[in-house]
Amino acid sequence: MSQLLRLGIAGLGTVGTGVVKIVRQKAPLLTERSGRSIEISAVSARTRDKDRGVNLSSYAWEDDPVALATREDVDVFVELMGGSDGPAKAAVEAALKAGKDVVTANKAMLAHHGQALAALAEAHGAVLRFEAAVAGGIPVIKALTEGLAGNDIERVMGVMNGTCNYILTRMEDGGLTYDEAFAEADALGFLEADPQLDVGGIDAGHKLSLLSSIAFGTQVNFDAVELEGIGSVTIEDIRQAADMGFRIKLLGVARMTGRGLEQSMAPCLVPANSPLGQLQGGTNMVVIEGDQVGQIVMRGAGAGEGPTASAVMGDVMDVARGLRVSTFGRPAASLVEAVPARASTPAPYYLRMTLADKPGALAKVATALGEAGVSINRMRQYGHNDDSAPVLIVTHKTTRNALDQALAAMEATGVVITAPVALRIEEV
Amino acid sequence: MSQLLRLGIAGLGTVGTGVVKIVRQKAPLLTERSGRSIEISAVSARTRDKDRGVNLSSYAWEDDPVALATREDVDVFVELMGGSDGPAKAAVEAALKAGKDVVTANKAMLAHHGQALAALAEAHGAVLRFEAAVAGGIPVIKALTEGLAGNDIERVMGVMNGTCNYILTRMEDGGLTYDEAFAEADALGFLEADPQLDVGGIDAGHKLSLLSSIAFGTQVNFDAVELEGIGSVTIEDIRQAADMGFRIKLLGVARMTGRGLEQSMAPCLVPANSPLGQLQGGTNMVVIEGDQVGQIVMRGAGAGEGPTASAVMGDVMDVARGLRVSTFGRPAASLVEAVPARASTPAPYYLRMTLADKPGALAKVATALGEAGVSINRMRQYGHNDDSAPVLIVTHKTTRNALDQALAAMEATGVVITAPVALRIEEV
Repeated sequence: MSQLLRLGIAGLGTVGTGVVKIVRQKAPLLTERSGRSIEISAVSARTRDKDRGVNLSSYAWEDDPVALATREDVDVFVELMGGSDGPAKAAVEAALKAGKDVVTANKAMLAHHGQALAALAEAHGAVLRFEAAVAGGIPVIKALTEGLAGNDIERVMGVMNGTCNYILTRMEDGGLTYDEAFAEADALGFLEADPQLDVGGIDAGHKLSLLSSIAFGTQVNFDAVELEGIGSVTIEDIRQAADMGFRIKLLGVARMTGRGLEQSMAPCLVPANSPLGQLQGGTNMVVIEGDQVGQIVMRGAGAGEGPTASAVMGDVMDVARGLRVSTFGRPAASLVEAVPARASTPAPYYLRMTLADKPGALAKVATALGEAGVSINRMRQYGHNDDSAPVLIVTHKTTRNALDQALAAMEATGVVITAPVALRIEEV
Repeated sequence: MSQLLRLGIAGLGTVGTGVVKIVRQKAPLLTERSGRSIEISAVSARTRDKDRGVNLSSYAWEDDPVALATREDVDVFVELMGGSDGPAKAAVEAALKAGKDVVTANKAMLAHHGQALAALAEAHGAVLRFEAAVAGGIPVIKALTEGLAGNDIERVMGVMNGTCNYILTRMEDGGLTYDEAFAEADALGFLEADPQLDVGGIDAGHKLSLLSSIAFGTQVNFDAVELEGIGSVTIEDIRQAADMGFRIKLLGVARMTGRGLEQSMAPCLVPANSPLGQLQGGTNMVVIEGDQVGQIVMRGAGAGEGPTASAVMGDVMDVARGLRVSTFGRPAASLVEAVPARASTPAPYYLRMTLADKPGALAKVATALGEAGVSINRMRQYGHNDDSAPVLIVTHKTTRNALDQALAAMEATGVVITAPVALRIEEV
């Protein structure tokens, strides 16, 4: 190992700039901790002439990230451009093919191409690390891949989209409607250019698919993540949930079952007094359950310059120290193609619907549930002033299949005016 | 690197047995994840003939752990005997001198001899890892040493003695006195042979001193940890704290200040709605604050066979994967001898005392505080039936020195019947 470790950084947005700052300002500390000098050889971004608040004049400039990735004087290619394909992927591939180690924060790229990139890295004796891609500054990839490597992992859960958690928290605390909270998040600049990445659960789903792969030794399969955004959650749901001692979170859950790998990212009810339930605002949380360790909870900032740059630097320091762990914790060739299974581990469900205010309507709904084998834990019908009655039902534990059967039978009765909202109550 | 990694395990109590079980039961998984076969060559314990619920017949037996540590067929010496000196230290030293890597769960040994052992390891090209020594199954050593290596650490806090947290939780939830809760913990087998290790804060203090070393690049200095046990906490304190929105925890806090390194392990008040405040029963929590990452919270089981064995195996897997990080995250020779500073970062304090029921008693106490520059946030005097009046005071932020001055002045007034209890309110 040379005493010097030279970085090439592609992408100089918030995170890239944060990484440059750390490398410049903490050089002695980084050297003391890693035993090596960490320097930046070259950088690349879409726009060269822009004041980024950091002096880049001593680094070579490349317009083309692929050229940057393959430079002689770059040992580690740090990819902070984003985008699942295009220049980011081309540059990462070029770096790996040149045998250079890669550190990336690109969840979308890994969610879609993780298997191929992991195989490419191994074929060229390079490592590919991505702590910053999941849950910002929380060192969860490291915990799962390394610290808990003696465990069979049983379940991984996470609240990993700060924007969604912010919106849900504002609905609960501020009494805002979904639209109002969404507008507030937008005004604060919390939303991605395509808001569906956030509120549709796509961004968080990308992260969950990466955690699943490490946890269960399976090939990343983002397409098999059941995605449900938070757009259908109403302030009424949040109030009802709170009234019963729950909070609603956009919760990712991955577990390996006899039927296959369940991966879901959907609004769920969790106990208000659990660590997940108590998570407020933009903070992220990941819960890992192993057969030996029991439950490990990790909480921290899920985004932002400092936290994300911290995660990138953790990976850089690992490379500097000579850590050579496979991308997803075991060789790419040994990652199995998991059978995707619909999330159907039995759970209680929260149902909200509006019924026609006719005699027998509630009985029809109850019958539909009973005939599907779904038993009712509690039911409430609310006072109303028109001809539609809001009804809320909490079931006992049931499978998703039985529930879907019940929901279909309810629709068929003709008394259900708005399609029922069904949210899982996750035991945490 | 040989394909085979051979362990010698000294100490076959709960944790040692747990490690044996994992190595036996998860061999394929461990190999897949590390690329190597992990096997046990030999074991050692005080008593050979004892049913430990696991088949040890295929392993060589050594009565002497030093002999075990230096066997030809041992690559990694796993020390799970405990005790700061004696056989554990002798065997670890022998292993390191023989160039063998060491994995240990021995917080007392490292708290007292960490610096010398780290230097010894480096002198012989060996690694010494101790994830299991701090906070059981929580991979906090890894997070602090590796994942957050790009940060200047600002503060480390932890609730790291499950027994103390159990006692405090039972006092709060069950309305037990300290003595009753202590007896209950004892009956459940939660206490060490010498209970002062738990309730005196020594065990948790050992752990804090190890975290400090990594966080601040300082030589382990357990003797400089200000220790205060939970024995002085009364049920009245817990009720008063709860009434004001706080919980009392045996909290370790380490921070580097201009005056030197503060390390304290003492009962503190923390906001009831903070992650630390919400921690119930025997669970541990460590909070790390870095200049880049902000606040990271990690929570999990702090003891027990599975969690501790999980941490030991995490270290074993790291060794198997070829990770060679210095014991405390940087070379032993670069760890500085920190100036120990009394924990005196300004904080609000909770004071409880009993005053003589004489006219002007309260005024004298208030004057003593005022003259020391300590200002009062709230004060309560309680109804009483004898000639002593219980009084509770919460101060505004003050230094510990100013507070001590005030406490001394109070004593001098002659109106204070029982020496005041002073608990810091830690901002978390």
